[in-house]
Amino acid sequence: MGKMMAISYEPIGIIHSPFPGIENVPIQPTAAAGILGTVEVFAEFAAGLKDLEGFSHIILLYHFHRVTQSRLVVTPFLDQELRGLFATRAPARPNPIGLSVVKLLSIEANVLQIEKVDIVDGTPLLDIKPYVPEFDHYKVERTGWLAAASRQVGGKRSDDRFG
Amino acid sequence: MGKMMAISYEPIGIIHSPFPGIENVPIQPTAAAGILGTVEVFAEFAAGLKDLEGFSHIILLYHFHRVTQSRLVVTPFLDQELRGLFATRAPARPNPIGLSVVKLLSIEANVLQIEKVDIVDGTPLLDIKPYVPEFDHYKVERTGWLAAASRQVGGKRSDDRFG
Repeated sequence: MGKMMAISYEPIGIIHSPFPGIENVPIQPTAAAGILGTVEVFAEFAAGLKDLEGFSHIILLYHFHRVTQSRLVVTPFLDQELRGLFATRAPARPNPIGLSVVKLLSIEANVLQIEKVDIVDGTPLLDIKPYVPEFDHYKVERTGWLAAASRQVGGKRSDDRFG
Repeated sequence: MGKMMAISYEPIGIIHSPFPGIENVPIQPTAAAGILGTVEVFAEFAAGLKDLEGFSHIILLYHFHRVTQSRLVVTPFLDQELRGLFATRAPARPNPIGLSVVKLLSIEANVLQIEKVDIVDGTPLLDIKPYVPEFDHYKVERTGWLAAASRQVGGKRSDDRFG
């Protein structure tokens, strides 16, 4: 397989939120308590939502559509130092895929009501997966530069540095 | 934005594992203790690995390259019932993006040694993110059909149903 293999995806829906632009968005779902949004899954994929309402939390994978260029070294929102991109959750990635775990409040037909939304309005949705502690909780030994910084996430909002 | 917007990604590396095909693979990292693999990040992205070695666990996002068709309703490995695709972690997704949290053992230049590998050899890598309990641990109220089934994940291996 060559390096230049292209992988092509299409949005399966759109995420709606109170955040019209990339500035002033909570920088993780943990900083987005009480913030409501909706996920509109396109009708042709609605059959795949069966059984999803049994889960209180879901993983959303989405395309950071407002990122205009990727970088390999960034100064993250939570730090003043330059960090390797893959050691951060910054949006300006070679493949700008975002990951958020949100609270699922309800599903009506193809529309999901969600809470803890840290996502820009209009973001193209790529995938939904159930969040399950048995698969998603790991006991870690080290969290690198984020060990100190992640405790400050609560009050932090984004700016336009990754536009 | 129309529904037909195409999103194009390119692999940033290749995941190597002891699993040459889609059969007999652990179905979650939790079922893959002691299984070693490597991640070869292409040289042009190696600068983005700075600071990553500080993290004991990392999130790999990758392309399920062996999936030939997506389905909206599947019988998962852990169940005998038909379930909505988005309520499962099955690979046969509209956008076949896989997500695994693996243990990071070491990094040398552009090669990562990893453990708890539940991924087919040769899988194209899309993204690496640091795994941080402050962002990735959620207290859930409900895990739907997986509440009972997920406890059986330890001894389970895949078969060829999603090829």
